[in-house]
Amino acid sequence: MLPEGLSFATRFDKVTGSAIREIFKVLARPNMISFAGGNPSLDALPDEACAKIAEEVLSSDGKRILQYGATEGYPPFLESLIEYLNKSYSFKADKSTVLPTTGSTAGMELICKAMLNPGDTVLVESPTFLGNMQTLNLYQANLVPIASDDEGVIPEEVEKAAQEHHPKLFYVIPNFQNPSGRTLSLERRKSIAQLAKKYGFLVLEDDPYRDLRYSGEHLPTIKEFDEEGYVVYMGSFSKIVSPGLRVGYLVAQQDILRKCAIGKQGTDLHTPNLNQAIVDQFLRRELLAPHIESILPGYRVKMEAMLRELETFPEGTRYTRPEGGLFLFVEMPEGFNATKLFDKAVENGVAYVPGTFFYPDGGHHNTLRLNFSGSTLEQIKEGMGILRTLFAENMA
Amino acid sequence: MLPEGLSFATRFDKVTGSAIREIFKVLARPNMISFAGGNPSLDALPDEACAKIAEEVLSSDGKRILQYGATEGYPPFLESLIEYLNKSYSFKADKSTVLPTTGSTAGMELICKAMLNPGDTVLVESPTFLGNMQTLNLYQANLVPIASDDEGVIPEEVEKAAQEHHPKLFYVIPNFQNPSGRTLSLERRKSIAQLAKKYGFLVLEDDPYRDLRYSGEHLPTIKEFDEEGYVVYMGSFSKIVSPGLRVGYLVAQQDILRKCAIGKQGTDLHTPNLNQAIVDQFLRRELLAPHIESILPGYRVKMEAMLRELETFPEGTRYTRPEGGLFLFVEMPEGFNATKLFDKAVENGVAYVPGTFFYPDGGHHNTLRLNFSGSTLEQIKEGMGILRTLFAENMA
Repeated sequence: MLPEGLSFATRFDKVTGSAIREIFKVLARPNMISFAGGNPSLDALPDEACAKIAEEVLSSDGKRILQYGATEGYPPFLESLIEYLNKSYSFKADKSTVLPTTGSTAGMELICKAMLNPGDTVLVESPTFLGNMQTLNLYQANLVPIASDDEGVIPEEVEKAAQEHHPKLFYVIPNFQNPSGRTLSLERRKSIAQLAKKYGFLVLEDDPYRDLRYSGEHLPTIKEFDEEGYVVYMGSFSKIVSPGLRVGYLVAQQDILRKCAIGKQGTDLHTPNLNQAIVDQFLRRELLAPHIESILPGYRVKMEAMLRELETFPEGTRYTRPEGGLFLFVEMPEGFNATKLFDKAVENGVAYVPGTFFYPDGGHHNTLRLNFSGSTLEQIKEGMGILRTLFAENMA
Repeated sequence: MLPEGLSFATRFDKVTGSAIREIFKVLARPNMISFAGGNPSLDALPDEACAKIAEEVLSSDGKRILQYGATEGYPPFLESLIEYLNKSYSFKADKSTVLPTTGSTAGMELICKAMLNPGDTVLVESPTFLGNMQTLNLYQANLVPIASDDEGVIPEEVEKAAQEHHPKLFYVIPNFQNPSGRTLSLERRKSIAQLAKKYGFLVLEDDPYRDLRYSGEHLPTIKEFDEEGYVVYMGSFSKIVSPGLRVGYLVAQQDILRKCAIGKQGTDLHTPNLNQAIVDQFLRRELLAPHIESILPGYRVKMEAMLRELETFPEGTRYTRPEGGLFLFVEMPEGFNATKLFDKAVENGVAYVPGTFFYPDGGHHNTLRLNFSGSTLEQIKEGMGILRTLFAENMA
């Protein structure tokens, strides 16, 4: 209980903590098979390379790395990041439009801080990433869910909501969406960029999974269809180098970026230099592309293994077949309750995330999200077997 | 200019960016002597030790370090931090009351997020640290300045303000205060803890400089006089290991700490594991105390050198004689304008921070803050000589 006379800020009134972070605690139990997180495979974490690089950068540039850095970024990383972005995308990236952040989590926080007043409307995909939904809730945004189909979020629904609700932001994950696994089609990317301009809202394009593509072709980002600065691109090295390093970035129109940098002065002053320096070396030594190449086959095999297991699930089980990313989204028949079954699944040694947590308005208890990257093939086989049996016993 | 139809959040209406961070840009000019920052001496940054430690921890625990970590902290660091706190202080530190943060900047942000609604009153020392004043302004706090004298902030003034303004928070830097260099007396520490309980406000005790004591004895923290949880203690390894690593912590009553942890899920998810692991090794291998011992003499010599230079400044120049920390605060005679003179000083090759930026209500243009730790003895002699001449020419 709070000491007498103290009280919490009202922004917490409806926020009780991320369900995923709470679920993480369950995962610490021995022998738990977890399909719950969004963790990269341990095999995919370049610990040997990082050990060597950390030693080298601290030996060669240690004084600068250990000293206070610029909010705008560790200069060598900012340089190589800009070069990397300009090679990878057709949008303009330079020092006035790029800001390193402490993971893309911190980028999300900065955009909310820069743009949102309490009560502002934010459009979100339904379902969407629950962590960032919590951030939006802490900024007391009015979340309006937008329906999706197999091509991703539906532009006609975005337009309808824009007319009705005058949103300030639209938060969207274009590639291998979390949790649905869906990828937004090319035409829809163009449409969303146009709608942002037409209705004057900011698109927050959250793209952490882009490079984890196992089939099909890369699509241009929404931001590449944006001429005037209505799209903020949010990137991350969490899924392709290491999440524990916490290095991400924002690409935004320069006034928006400047506002984010001012906000960042008060959230962490700057992203730790060492972490930026390590990722810098991955870019500078051209280690990133081969590293990604080396992890993709293993992820693809895991995804396919999990999909094969799903084929044998009870009749009426539907699920996405993503072209990349880390997640499968499963829809059981109406009446099935994956939320209620969660505790039972954990008792049996398997964790997932009930789909309801990804829906701004809750419900959808017949859905769940499965992560395949964090488990071994053996764990996928065993864990999916346990779920299959449990689910079969609990069909409505 | 912002694209049409977009607008920034109102929390930025009165915030234009930290003056210090802007001044930092000036410092990049070649041969600039900077008394402006709060930078540790380059000699004091343990780059060789960190290079070795980073390599070792990534080799021995790299998979865990590079994977997602717990918002509550990297377990070995949390353990050694708690042990360190319990050895150093009489307040209770355990897993329910301690949270690692991405520098104490992030700790400040989390406390504001947990506690402050727009319009809430926050008491601050006058003058106080401008960076955190900006954070308070971004939370749209109503700042009420509290007068100080040579023993630090005056409890009778705190009580008067508590009665009049019903504050939610009192932000205070007890040791070698930034910018004044003053240390809060023992009796006043007790009084402030009592006032917090009596009037039901939270004390935010920001203590980054404590271990940089060059004379006199350590005093107990305000938190050590707090039984019920009215004091949050904010610590940092920035001044005693490295600011670039961004590792700090909060010690708070458990409900407050839990709220901060939920807030942290959305600001950076967790403080980077590698950075926590490096500081962990400083604690675990007992490198911290000898490292601090090794840097204190150099800092003391620099402070004394700067004080000696100040003795020869124009008549009427007054300044603090701190027992530790990184800053001297100078008060020139009324009518002198250190704010106006700043550009001229920079032209002549020396930077400081005009004191006005540290006052919640501005004014005090006859004051300035000088940092001695970031310069060499030669730079102190030369830079102070330049300031002495410039100031003598510009006496009112």
